[in-house]
Amino acid sequence: MIDPQTPLSRVGEKAFLEHLERRIPLGPGVVLGVGDDAAALEGLVPKALVTTDSLVEGIHFRREWAPPRLLGRKALSVNLSDVAAMGGTPRHATVSLCLPADTTFGFVDELYDGLLERAAENAVNLVGGNVTSTTGPVVIDITLLGQGDGLLTRRGARPGDRILVTGSLGAAAAGLMLLGQGVRVDAEGALASLGPWTESSAGPLLRCLLAVLDPRPPIGLGRSLGEAGVAHAAIDVSDGLSSDLRRLCEASGLCARVDAFRIPVDESASVVARARGREALDLALHSGEEYQLLLAVPEDRVEEATGLALVWHVDLTDIGAFEEGDPDVFLRTATGMRSLLPGGHDHFAGVEIPAPGQPVR
Amino acid sequence: MIDPQTPLSRVGEKAFLEHLERRIPLGPGVVLGVGDDAAALEGLVPKALVTTDSLVEGIHFRREWAPPRLLGRKALSVNLSDVAAMGGTPRHATVSLCLPADTTFGFVDELYDGLLERAAENAVNLVGGNVTSTTGPVVIDITLLGQGDGLLTRRGARPGDRILVTGSLGAAAAGLMLLGQGVRVDAEGALASLGPWTESSAGPLLRCLLAVLDPRPPIGLGRSLGEAGVAHAAIDVSDGLSSDLRRLCEASGLCARVDAFRIPVDESASVVARARGREALDLALHSGEEYQLLLAVPEDRVEEATGLALVWHVDLTDIGAFEEGDPDVFLRTATGMRSLLPGGHDHFAGVEIPAPGQPVR
Repeated sequence: MIDPQTPLSRVGEKAFLEHLERRIPLGPGVVLGVGDDAAALEGLVPKALVTTDSLVEGIHFRREWAPPRLLGRKALSVNLSDVAAMGGTPRHATVSLCLPADTTFGFVDELYDGLLERAAENAVNLVGGNVTSTTGPVVIDITLLGQGDGLLTRRGARPGDRILVTGSLGAAAAGLMLLGQGVRVDAEGALASLGPWTESSAGPLLRCLLAVLDPRPPIGLGRSLGEAGVAHAAIDVSDGLSSDLRRLCEASGLCARVDAFRIPVDESASVVARARGREALDLALHSGEEYQLLLAVPEDRVEEATGLALVWHVDLTDIGAFEEGDPDVFLRTATGMRSLLPGGHDHFAGVEIPAPGQPVR
Repeated sequence: MIDPQTPLSRVGEKAFLEHLERRIPLGPGVVLGVGDDAAALEGLVPKALVTTDSLVEGIHFRREWAPPRLLGRKALSVNLSDVAAMGGTPRHATVSLCLPADTTFGFVDELYDGLLERAAENAVNLVGGNVTSTTGPVVIDITLLGQGDGLLTRRGARPGDRILVTGSLGAAAAGLMLLGQGVRVDAEGALASLGPWTESSAGPLLRCLLAVLDPRPPIGLGRSLGEAGVAHAAIDVSDGLSSDLRRLCEASGLCARVDAFRIPVDESASVVARARGREALDLALHSGEEYQLLLAVPEDRVEEATGLALVWHVDLTDIGAFEEGDPDVFLRTATGMRSLLPGGHDHFAGVEIPAPGQPVR
């Protein structure tokens, strides 16, 4: 038994990797799991899906904001969201970690608690990985393999298709705002600090924090939509509705018209936004990291899509339609129609997560 | 056309990703390539292989030592080596980059020159990736997918199997030593600076530098050995013969006896080592990043293995045999038999690449 406070530099690479390997079970479809030069897998048919996404400390998370268990969960979730947006079934993941030498054994062990837990919830196997030291921030890079057939690409939307969005929007941005104010959750996902808020707001606070720290993309619905061939196109909302809907438009060569009053603004985000004097709709339109699905569904199949959403306990909202036209997104509000410009995250434009106490964008 | 000196923060994420996407062709087996939520692949049968490995600036490379084109080549090669060591065929790769905001467009574009070139040499498709900014060092994380059937695991060696090693050993360590002395290559892989050496040593210098900056694992031979079922076990020499042979022993539950005089010490490494008063055999025994294959082959199939090596223009040397016994590696020298302790790299033991001018270990 290794003391959780022991720095990895004192545990040693061999003992550390052996410990990790012992924690990882061999699941279905895995011929050869962790511990060899490569993993060997069976049954990735008819099509194998592959996606990769990473969380970088100081860019996507702060260690003081996110308990490592939740970080592990989220690192997998952001990839699960991509496979859901393809209409596929997630199957296997590799985990590549860059860790500063002073990282504790306990940090990585709890990170794996979250990874293994989230993997098990979704019948995903961890089949390999890599650990390296770094002179910089923690990097958690995951590649997720899935399988599927009727793929939901970004380019399949057609004129007249309805624009449907799962769940509600805005809570992740509100959660990021709350983290900046010192509101915190513990490793079990319970509220640990209220920051400047009072106990009466605990419910909305927790929902917003978990939206950003432990997102749960609608994986079952994504797979069902792919299998049933109900949707023409899909994308996950990882950079914000305004950015990701524009991507669907560009890939499909269409424009989109969205009704502002139909946007499913998250209720908890509204509570938080109101108290800060912010417009909750703005959060919902531009909040990244929502990990909801944005779908193009032909009008005569909206009812079928709604039925599937009911099966998976996912809200599904019709927010507008695709039309012929140059790729663009228009928002209809009480005062008229305006072009909705992308307000999401640009990785190299110098936009970073805010310092504690600063507004989110 | 974007000026190569432009920092990525001024290029913008969208223009940058669009540029990268335009560079990446759609290859065989790729149903859907880069630019969607996930890539879709066909034909990864009967077994899909997956491996992941990364290069971290300051740990695995220095920007002033390695032209970005060679970095790109190496980042893929270290993964190709793992698939070769499984006896598989490499097929598809995803590339995940962490880049500081001051990284130039030219750096990444040249990195992709190397990635695309090495991928094309090996009929590998780049099918996806991720780019994120970081406050720390450059990280190049690659996941490689392959396919295969008769897999060469680490655990299959049997008593009496001969230990065969491809190519020669020690040049990568000698190359690292030379980089520390200021010897340099340019982006085309030609000698750019001799450091303290004279022109008469140019040949050996270049061979050692390219061994560490542009390794070429025996990919064709690995695949053939897997297909022919000639080897019982295999591993690639990424941490050093002494470490990796020990891993084969531990996985197979055997001990290994190696004859020192049979080790294929690289001739160029010998030239470099001699001039530094170092023993070239030491380099060959412990040099990591050699990316040669270490094989367990039954005595009656050594001739067949040698025949395949001839086809692929790869040297194959018999250096000893596996025996019943507790996992250990013994080295027979002129003065007797001794246990060969692992001398490779431990990621968390504080061993890092040396400062220029310092010895390699």
